[in-house]
Amino acid sequence: MAAVLDRKTHYLGGPFEKDNPTLSSTLPPTNQSNLGIAIIGLGGAVGTTAAAGIELIRRGLQPTTGLPLAEFADLDLVPYTNLKIHGWDLFDHDLLTAARVHRVLDREELDVLANDLSGRRPWTAVSNRNYCRGVVGDQDSTGTHRELISGIQQQLDAFATDIDGRVVVINLASTEHAIEVADEIYQRTEAFERALDENHTGISPAMLYAYACITHGVPYGNFTPSRAAEIPALRSLAARRGVPVAGKDGKTGQTFLKTVIAPALRARALHVDGWFSTNILGNRDGEALRHPESLQNKLGTKGDVLTNCLGYPVEDHLVKINYYRPRGDDKEAWDNIDVSGFLGHRMQIKIDFLCKDSILAAPLAIEIARCLDLAARRGQGGVLESLGVFFKAPMTTDGREPIHSFGEQQTELLRWLRESSEMPTAVAGKFIPRPD
Amino acid sequence: MAAVLDRKTHYLGGPFEKDNPTLSSTLPPTNQSNLGIAIIGLGGAVGTTAAAGIELIRRGLQPTTGLPLAEFADLDLVPYTNLKIHGWDLFDHDLLTAARVHRVLDREELDVLANDLSGRRPWTAVSNRNYCRGVVGDQDSTGTHRELISGIQQQLDAFATDIDGRVVVINLASTEHAIEVADEIYQRTEAFERALDENHTGISPAMLYAYACITHGVPYGNFTPSRAAEIPALRSLAARRGVPVAGKDGKTGQTFLKTVIAPALRARALHVDGWFSTNILGNRDGEALRHPESLQNKLGTKGDVLTNCLGYPVEDHLVKINYYRPRGDDKEAWDNIDVSGFLGHRMQIKIDFLCKDSILAAPLAIEIARCLDLAARRGQGGVLESLGVFFKAPMTTDGREPIHSFGEQQTELLRWLRESSEMPTAVAGKFIPRPD
Amino acid sequence: MAAVLDRKTHYLGGPFEKDNPTLSSTLPPTNQSNLGIAIIGLGGAVGTTAAAGIELIRRGLQPTTGLPLAEFADLDLVPYTNLKIHGWDLFDHDLLTAARVHRVLDREELDVLANDLSGRRPWTAVSNRNYCRGVVGDQDSTGTHRELISGIQQQLDAFATDIDGRVVVINLASTEHAIEVADEIYQRTEAFERALDENHTGISPAMLYAYACITHGVPYGNFTPSRAAEIPALRSLAARRGVPVAGKDGKTGQTFLKTVIAPALRARALHVDGWFSTNILGNRDGEALRHPESLQNKLGTKGDVLTNCLGYPVEDHLVKINYYRPRGDDKEAWDNIDVSGFLGHRMQIKIDFLCKDSILAAPLAIEIARCLDLAARRGQGGVLESLGVFFKAPMTTDGREPIHSFGEQQTELLRWLRESSEMPTAVAGKFIPRPD
Amino acid sequence: MAAVLDRKTHYLGGPFEKDNPTLSSTLPPTNQSNLGIAIIGLGGAVGTTAAAGIELIRRGLQPTTGLPLAEFADLDLVPYTNLKIHGWDLFDHDLLTAARVHRVLDREELDVLANDLSGRRPWTAVSNRNYCRGVVGDQDSTGTHRELISGIQQQLDAFATDIDGRVVVINLASTEHAIEVADEIYQRTEAFERALDENHTGISPAMLYAYACITHGVPYGNFTPSRAAEIPALRSLAARRGVPVAGKDGKTGQTFLKTVIAPALRARALHVDGWFSTNILGNRDGEALRHPESLQNKLGTKGDVLTNCLGYPVEDHLVKINYYRPRGDDKEAWDNIDVSGFLGHRMQIKIDFLCKDSILAAPLAIEIARCLDLAARRGQGGVLESLGVFFKAPMTTDGREPIHSFGEQQTELLRWLRESSEMPTAVAGKFIPRPD
Repeated sequence: MAAVLDRKTHYLGGPFEKDNPTLSSTLPPTNQSNLGIAIIGLGGAVGTTAAAGIELIRRGLQPTTGLPLAEFADLDLVPYTNLKIHGWDLFDHDLLTAARVHRVLDREELDVLANDLSGRRPWTAVSNRNYCRGVVGDQDSTGTHRELISGIQQQLDAFATDIDGRVVVINLASTEHAIEVADEIYQRTEAFERALDENHTGISPAMLYAYACITHGVPYGNFTPSRAAEIPALRSLAARRGVPVAGKDGKTGQTFLKTVIAPALRARALHVDGWFSTNILGNRDGEALRHPESLQNKLGTKGDVLTNCLGYPVEDHLVKINYYRPRGDDKEAWDNIDVSGFLGHRMQIKIDFLCKDSILAAPLAIEIARCLDLAARRGQGGVLESLGVFFKAPMTTDGREPIHSFGEQQTELLRWLRESSEMPTAVAGKFIPRPD
Repeated sequence: MAAVLDRKTHYLGGPFEKDNPTLSSTLPPTNQSNLGIAIIGLGGAVGTTAAAGIELIRRGLQPTTGLPLAEFADLDLVPYTNLKIHGWDLFDHDLLTAARVHRVLDREELDVLANDLSGRRPWTAVSNRNYCRGVVGDQDSTGTHRELISGIQQQLDAFATDIDGRVVVINLASTEHAIEVADEIYQRTEAFERALDENHTGISPAMLYAYACITHGVPYGNFTPSRAAEIPALRSLAARRGVPVAGKDGKTGQTFLKTVIAPALRARALHVDGWFSTNILGNRDGEALRHPESLQNKLGTKGDVLTNCLGYPVEDHLVKINYYRPRGDDKEAWDNIDVSGFLGHRMQIKIDFLCKDSILAAPLAIEIARCLDLAARRGQGGVLESLGVFFKAPMTTDGREPIHSFGEQQTELLRWLRESSEMPTAVAGKFIPRPD
Repeated sequence: MAAVLDRKTHYLGGPFEKDNPTLSSTLPPTNQSNLGIAIIGLGGAVGTTAAAGIELIRRGLQPTTGLPLAEFADLDLVPYTNLKIHGWDLFDHDLLTAARVHRVLDREELDVLANDLSGRRPWTAVSNRNYCRGVVGDQDSTGTHRELISGIQQQLDAFATDIDGRVVVINLASTEHAIEVADEIYQRTEAFERALDENHTGISPAMLYAYACITHGVPYGNFTPSRAAEIPALRSLAARRGVPVAGKDGKTGQTFLKTVIAPALRARALHVDGWFSTNILGNRDGEALRHPESLQNKLGTKGDVLTNCLGYPVEDHLVKINYYRPRGDDKEAWDNIDVSGFLGHRMQIKIDFLCKDSILAAPLAIEIARCLDLAARRGQGGVLESLGVFFKAPMTTDGREPIHSFGEQQTELLRWLRESSEMPTAVAGKFIPRPD
Repeated sequence: MAAVLDRKTHYLGGPFEKDNPTLSSTLPPTNQSNLGIAIIGLGGAVGTTAAAGIELIRRGLQPTTGLPLAEFADLDLVPYTNLKIHGWDLFDHDLLTAARVHRVLDREELDVLANDLSGRRPWTAVSNRNYCRGVVGDQDSTGTHRELISGIQQQLDAFATDIDGRVVVINLASTEHAIEVADEIYQRTEAFERALDENHTGISPAMLYAYACITHGVPYGNFTPSRAAEIPALRSLAARRGVPVAGKDGKTGQTFLKTVIAPALRARALHVDGWFSTNILGNRDGEALRHPESLQNKLGTKGDVLTNCLGYPVEDHLVKINYYRPRGDDKEAWDNIDVSGFLGHRMQIKIDFLCKDSILAAPLAIEIARCLDLAARRGQGGVLESLGVFFKAPMTTDGREPIHSFGEQQTELLRWLRESSEMPTAVAGKFIPRPD
C-alpha cells in the first residue's frame, strides 16, 4: 500500500526513486493519470477560481479560454480534465462560501457548482503571524518545524491516494513579508536544516511547505512574491534531489504588459525617460499589501524588470499599489510611459488595463502545475528556468539575473515544451540526481 | 566619367553590372562611401524631419535616439554621417520653409540648420491629380510616361555624381488612392511596360518612380500605403533585375503597438472580442485621408494585421482615422481592446499613444534606406521580406500573407542583419540575377 | 364611467376640462393617485430597464440611486411607488424576454421579476419603415393617420382606466431619420392637420403619437432625437391646448459631461482649441445609428452644444458614434479636449466614461414623466423649458436657442420645482389655455 | 513724500487711514493707478511665469487667454497692463535665469523678455528650514521676528514708491509643513503677538509675511497650502484692521475638475463609491512634497472637498502625489471615479488631465491680486469668502466649512464682482474697521 501511494506522490528523480528503483522503471508515469494540485491558500480568490474553473471545464460548461497552453494539445501535458484541486487555507470556509466572498465568479457560475464546492474544505494551513499580517487568523500553528513538515507530507500522501495520481504544490498564499536573504540559514542546506531542527524563527511557513515538498519528491511552484524556494538553501536542495521548482510571483497584469512593451520600445530605440505604474485593487491581496513589509516584497519583484528589458536603468520608474475597495478583485493598472524618440522629441504612452486579478492568475497557476508535472515525469529537477514567462521574478538555477522580455520567455517556453515532448529520454538523462 | 557615376548609382546585381561586369568586381562597394537617399515627398513632415535630423546628427547636436539600428555599430550598414538626403516634392519650398510649416521641429532646431536647409530645394515631383487629391498642386506633370521615367533617372544620376556615392529612393509622398490590382496591366511586366508605352492612365506617379528605380538598379523603399512596387508586374521585375525593394506603409504608431500587444494576448490565450482603434491627427497626411479613396488605401493596410497576429479573425475590429487640426503633426492613437479570459470573464485594455508621426516615421525611413543599400551591396534583389518589421503591410516575394507579429519580425530582421554581415558571399550568391 | 376615465387620463388645462369644467375643480388631481407612463419603445433597453427598475424599487429591492429627484421628497411629485409602466413596441416580446435580450439587467434581477414581466406585452407600435430603418419589423402599420391617432388615444384611455390614474407618454423609440423642418406642413398647425387628413407621407410615427397626446390632454416627453413635438405646428398646438411637452434627446453620458466641463473651462478662460468625442456602443440604438439618416438626426442634437457652453464656436469639434458589438448596452465615451491656457500654452483633458446607456437613461425618462405630470397638475402647458437639464437639445417655447450649461439648467430645474410646490395657484394661473 | 507713498501702499480701511483720515477721502483710489504684486517665492515656476506673462501681455505679444476675469472689462478691476510684479525668493537668481530653470516658458518667449527679466532680482526671502525642507537654501534668516516683519514692511513701502501705486502680497512659496493649529499662540491675536515678541519657534515665515501685511494695510493672498493667514489669530486681526485676505491653496488642476464633476454627479444621483486621484509632477513643488510633513499639509487641503460637493463621505477617496522628474512643470492628474447608478449598476469615469501647473496657477494668482485690490479699494476687509473659486481650501470668516462646488463658487464670485462695481459705498460701509 505504501509503495502504491508513494508512486503516485513522487516522481522519477525524487528521493523515492532511489529507494525503489525498480518501481519507477516498470511503471513509467504518463499524462493520462490524474494530477492533484495542492494549493497553499486554496480559499483565496485565485485558489477558488482555479478550483471552480477546472470543474466548469471538466463539465464542458466553459471552454479553455485564458489557459495559455490549451492550444498545444499534442504535447505531453496532463489534460485539464485530469486535474484535481485541493489545498490548505488559514480560514476554514468551504470553497463555495469562500468563492462567494471573493466575488470573482458570478452567481450563475457558482450555482451550478454549489454541490461540488460546498463539500470541499481546505486543510488547515501553517500559520505564522510574524510573516503575514493583516489577513491572518488569530492563531499561529503549534508544533515544531519538523512536525509541521511531516504533517504537510502526510496530507500530500493522502491526497495522492485519494485521487489515485501524482501531486504538485502551488503556493498562492498571501505575500509573506521580506526576509534578509543574506542570512546564513538561507544560504546553505545544512544551515537551513539545523535551523529547522532548532525551530528558528527565521523560517517562514512558505519555507516549511517548500522543504516538505522537495524532500518528499513533490514539485513546488511559487506563485507569490515570498522568497521560500528561492533561497539558495532550498534551490540547491531541489537540484540535488531532482525535484522541479519554479517561481516566483505570477506575471499577470501590469508586469505582463510591461515586459511585452518595453522590449518593443527598445527595438525601436525609443528611450524610456520614465515609467509610472499605479494599481488600484480591493481584494485580500491588496489588503495584505497595506502592510509595508509585504509591500516591500511585492515591489522588490517588480523593480528591475524594466532595466532588464531595456538594457539601461530608468531612474524614474515608479510602481505604486493602492488598496481601493470599490474594485474588489477587479484590478486597474494604469501606466504612463514617457519616451524620447528621434532628435529627442518626447512622446507618451498610457495604458489602462481593467483586469481581473484572479481571472488572469488562476490559469497561469494551473499551467505552472502542468509544466512542473511534465518536468518531473521527464526527470528534470531543480529550478525550471524555462517557465520564466509565467513569473514576475523568474528564479534561475544559480541566482543570476533572469530574462524578463515576454517574447524571449515565450520562445523559450515553447522550445522547452517541444524539446520535452520530442526527446524525453535525453532530457531526463541530463538531470540525474546527484547524491545529496 | 559615366562609368564612375554609374558605379555609384547602381549596385551589384543591377542592370549596370551586366554591362560592366568587371567594374563591380574590381571595385566592391563598401559602407564607407556616401549614400544618397532620394525622397519622394521631401518637403513633407517626414522628409524634412529626416533631412534635418541627419544634419543634426552629423553635426553632433543630437544623439541617435529613435534610430532602431543605431546600436548595431558592428554591422555593415552605412554610418548615419555618410547619408545625404535630397528628393522631389510637388511644392517648390526650400526645406527650411517647408519644415517651419510642418512644426515638427522646434525653432531652436531649425535656427541652427537655417543656412543648410534654406539652400535646399526639391526637384519637381511627378504629379497626377487623379491619384492624390487634396494636397496636390494645381498642375499635372506634362510629358509621356517614358519621358517622366527618364527624367527621374537623370535626376538620380546627377544626385549620385553630386554626392560621389550610391543612391536609394524612399517614397514618403501622400497616399495615392486605391487601384484595382487585379487589372491586367499590374499583373505582368510585359503588360505594364506596354501600358507605359501607351501612357495608360492606370499608371500612378509612384509606379513611375518604382519602375524608374528598378530599371536603373536603384533600390526602392515604399513607406506609403500606395501600391506601386507591390504590384506583381514590378515585384517580379525587381527580382529579375536583382534590385532590392521593400514596403509598404511604415509601421509607426498604432499598428506598431497593435502588433506588439496582439501576439502577447495570444500567448496568454486572452481572446480578443473586439478592438477599436481611433486616431486623431492634423498634418498633411490627415488631410489627404479625408478623401475616401485615399483612406481606403490606408485602412486596407491596417485591416488583416490583427487576424494575422491572433490566428483568428476579430469581426469587431474597427480602425478610424480623423483629421483633427489642433494636433498638427502630433498624433493621438487611442485603442480599446475587449478581451475574454479564463471562464469567459471580460477585461479591457486601453492604450493612448500621444505620438509624433514624423518623429516616429523619419528614423524608420532612414533605416530602410540603409538596409536596402546593404542588401544591394550584398547582391540581394527583389522583395526584401526581412525588413517586414518596418512596415504595416510587408510585401512578400510571392504575394502571400506576411508575418505581422512585431517580435517575430524583429527576430527576422536581426537574423538577416547578422547573416549579411557574417557571410556576404554566400548570401550574395543566392541572388544572382536571372536574365530579364 | 367615461367621466372617471377621462379625469384620470387628462389634466387641468387639457381639452377635457373645457367640456367638463366642474369635474376638475371638484376633484383636483394630487400626487397620491397613480401615474401611468406609456412608453413608445417599451421593449427596448431603456424601456425594459425603466419598467423593471420601478418594480424593483416598489418591492424595496433597490434604493433610488440614479434617480435625480429622489432626494426631493418634499416636492409635489408622484412617488415612484405610484408609477405604472406600459407602452408600445414594434416587437411583440413580453418584457421578460425583451429584457433578457438587452442584457442590461442581470439574471438575478430578472429572476426575481420573472412572473411580473413575463405577463406584460406591449401594444403594437405604429410602424413606418420610411422613418426608421434597421431595427424595424417587416410590416408598416395599416390605417389612415387619423385612425392610427384614434387608436393611440383609445389605448391611453384604457391604460388610465386600468391603473385608475393619470397618464403621460414618453418616446423612447429608435431615432427616426431627419426631416426637412422648413417644410410647410411642419410650420403651422392647420397645415399639419390638413396633412394628417391627406395621409401625407411627411408625417412620421412620432408625430402621430405627439399629436394624439396633445389633442387628448396627455403630456408628451420626447427622449429621442426625433423631431416630432419640436416642429412649430405641434409646439404651438401644445401651448394652445395647455398640454405640457418636453424634449428632446435624453442627456445621458458624453453630452452630460460635456455640458458640465465646458462651462468650467470657460469660467477659467481656458480656450478650447478642439474637442474630439468618440463613442463605442453595441445596443439596438447603435445599430440604428449605422444608418446615415438616423445618425444625422443624432449628431444634429449634439452639434451646437459646445458653442453654447463656451460662447464661441469650436471649429474642430468632432463627434463620432461607432457601432461596436462587444459592448452591448455598455457604452464607452472617450473625449479628448485640447485647451490653451495662459500665454497660449497647450494642455489636454481626456475623459473616458465607461457608462451603461440604459442605466443612465431610464431614471431620466422616469423623472421627465414625473415632472410633466407635475406641470400638468399645475396647469402649465406648452414647451416646459425648465426641464432642459434632461435633454441634449432642449426645446424652447419659441424655437430660440436653449441654454446648455448643465449647472445653469440644474439651477433652473430646482427653481421650477420649488416654485411649483410653493405657489401652485399663481403658476397655474399663468397658463390659462387660450381658445384653439 | 511719505504721505504719497503711504497712500499708495495702503488702502481705505488699513491702519494708515486711521492716522490720516483726510487723505483717503480726498484722494480715493481708482483702478487706473499701478498695482504692485509682491510675490513670496517670485523665482519659482509660478512666480516667474506670472512676471513674464504680465510683461508679454503688456507688450501685446500675448492675449489674455487663461485669465478668468479678462472678459469682464467693465468691472472696476485694475487693468493687466497696470500690474507690476516683484517679490522675494530664497534663491538669488535673476528672473531670466530662474525662468530658464523651470522650463515653463519656452526659449522664444524668454528671448524676447531677456533684457527685462535679467535685470530683476528678488529680495531675499525669510527662510526657516524648520518649515520647508528640501528646496531651501542652507541658511536661515537672522534677526528677531519683529525685525523680519519690519524689513518686509520697508520692502513693501519701497516697492509702492517705486511703482507709484498700491501693493498686494501673494504667497507662492513652497508648502510649509503642517502645524498644530489648536496651539494657543495661533488662536488669539494677543497670544500670537506675544509669541512674536518672544521669537517663538512656532511662527513660520508665512505667518511673518501675513502679519507684516495685515498690520501694514496690505492685502494678503495665500496661494499655498501653508496655514499662515488661516490661523484664527491672523484671521480676526485682518477683520479688525479691515485688510482683505484670501486663501488657501490655488485650485488649479485635479481639484478644479473634481469640484466641477462631483456636483454634477450629485445632481444626477450617481453615487460615488470611490475616487482615486493620482498626480505625477516633477517641479520644485513636487520635490518639496516628497517630505512627508509638507505632503500632509497638501493632502489636508484636498481631503474633504469631495464630501462637501457630494453631501456624503466617500470612504475610498484616495489622493496620491508623486514626484516624477520626466514631466518637469508639466503635470499629469489621473482620476478614476467609480459610480453606481440606477439599480446599483456600476460605471466608471476616468479623467486624464495633462496640464501645466504654472500655466494654470499664474493667472489665478494674478486675478486673486486684482480682486484683493478691488476689495481693499471698496473697504472690504477680513477673509474674502467670495474668492473661494480660486482655492482648494477656501478660508471662511469664522472657520466654518466652505462651499467647494465650482459652479456655486463661480456664481458667488460673479455676484461679488458685480455687487462691488455697482454699490461701492454701501459695501465699504459694512467694513468699517473696529478698534483693535
